[in-house]
Amino acid sequence: MDKDQALKLVKPHLIQTRYEHTERVMQTALTLAEIYQIDQEEAMLAAVFHDYAKYRPLEEMIQIIKDYQLPDDLLSFHHELWHGPVASILVETELNIGNQAIKEAIYWHTTGHGQMSPLEKIIYLADYIEPGRDFPGLDMIRKTAIENLDEACFMAVRQSMNYLLSHERLIYPETLNMYNQLKRKLEESNS
Amino acid sequence: MDKDQALKLVKPHLIQTRYEHTERVMQTALTLAEIYQIDQEEAMLAAVFHDYAKYRPLEEMIQIIKDYQLPDDLLSFHHELWHGPVASILVETELNIGNQAIKEAIYWHTTGHGQMSPLEKIIYLADYIEPGRDFPGLDMIRKTAIENLDEACFMAVRQSMNYLLSHERLIYPETLNMYNQLKRKLEESNS
Repeated sequence: MDKDQALKLVKPHLIQTRYEHTERVMQTALTLAEIYQIDQEEAMLAAVFHDYAKYRPLEEMIQIIKDYQLPDDLLSFHHELWHGPVASILVETELNIGNQAIKEAIYWHTTGHGQMSPLEKIIYLADYIEPGRDFPGLDMIRKTAIENLDEACFMAVRQSMNYLLSHERLIYPETLNMYNQLKRKLEESNS
Repeated sequence: MDKDQALKLVKPHLIQTRYEHTERVMQTALTLAEIYQIDQEEAMLAAVFHDYAKYRPLEEMIQIIKDYQLPDDLLSFHHELWHGPVASILVETELNIGNQAIKEAIYWHTTGHGQMSPLEKIIYLADYIEPGRDFPGLDMIRKTAIENLDEACFMAVRQSMNYLLSHERLIYPETLNMYNQLKRKLEESNS
C-alpha cells in the first residue's frame, strides 16, 4: 500500500484537523525512519493509521477491548488511552493490516511502554513533535529527535508525565515503565 | 514497649540528626494517629523504627533483599529505596517486632504502594511533613494532613514524583500505584 492509498483509506475515519495531523505525523515519521534506518513502509502505515480508531464511539471501543481481551486495566484509565489498542485490532479486521510491528506501534503510540522497538519510538515521537504541535520545550525535543531517538523519547515521556501530574491526571503504568527504561538505557550509554 | 524503650533501642543505629528526625516523625505520627483513630502503639513503633536500617552497609542490605526474597526489582532502583523493606525484616529478626501492620508501614514508608492501610499512610506522611522538613508547598500539605489523610498523601506523593521527574530520577512503580489509587479514591469521594 502506498502513501496515497493509505491516506485515502484513513480519511473517512477522521475529522479534517485530525487528518491533517495524520499527514504531518506521517511526514515526521518518514523523516525519522530515514535517519534511524527503519523500514519506510512500516513507518508510513503505522503513522497513517495511528489514530484510525480515534472517533469510534466509546461503547464500541469498550466492546473491542473486552472481545479481544486487551488488558482490563485500560478501562480504568482515561478513554484517551483506548484508541491506540483498539486501532491495532481494527486495522487488521477492517483493513487487513496484520503486520505485528505496525500493529504494536499503533497500539502503544499514546502510552508508550517499557520495551519499545525503534518503530514504536518513532511513531510515539512523531505524534508528539509533528510541526502542528506547539508547547513549551518542544523545539528542544525536535532538535534532539534528529540526533538521539532514546533521548528525545525520554524528554517527551518525561514532559508528558509532568503534564499529567500538574493536572492531577492518572498516569498509565506502562508510561512510567517507558520513562524508567529509557532513563536506564541513557545512563548505561553515557557511562 | 513504650516510647522511651523504643527510642533507646533505635538510637545506636542512627546518626544524631537522623535520631532527632525519628523523634519528630514519632511525634507527628502520634498526632495523626489520634486524629484518624489509629492504634497509638503501632503508630509509635512503626515511626520509631522506620529508619532502623538506614545506615546498614549496602552489601548487607543486598544480602537481606536476596535472602528474604524481597522483590528483585528493588535492586534495580536507587538504594535509598532499600532501607524500608530491609528494616521490616530486621525489626523482627533483631528486635522481635513481628506485628505485620507495623512491619508493612516500615516496609512502604519511602515508596508507598497501591493499597495503603491508614497506618501506612500516617507513617509515610509523618516522614514527609515532620517539623524539621522544609520545602515549598509543605505548609499546605501539613494543613491538609489534619483534615484529610488521603488528600494529604496524594499531595505528598504527587510532589515527590514531581521532584523525581524534575531531577530525571527513576520512579518506583508502586509510587505511581499510590498516586493513581489515591487519585481514584479522591475522585470517588468527591462525586
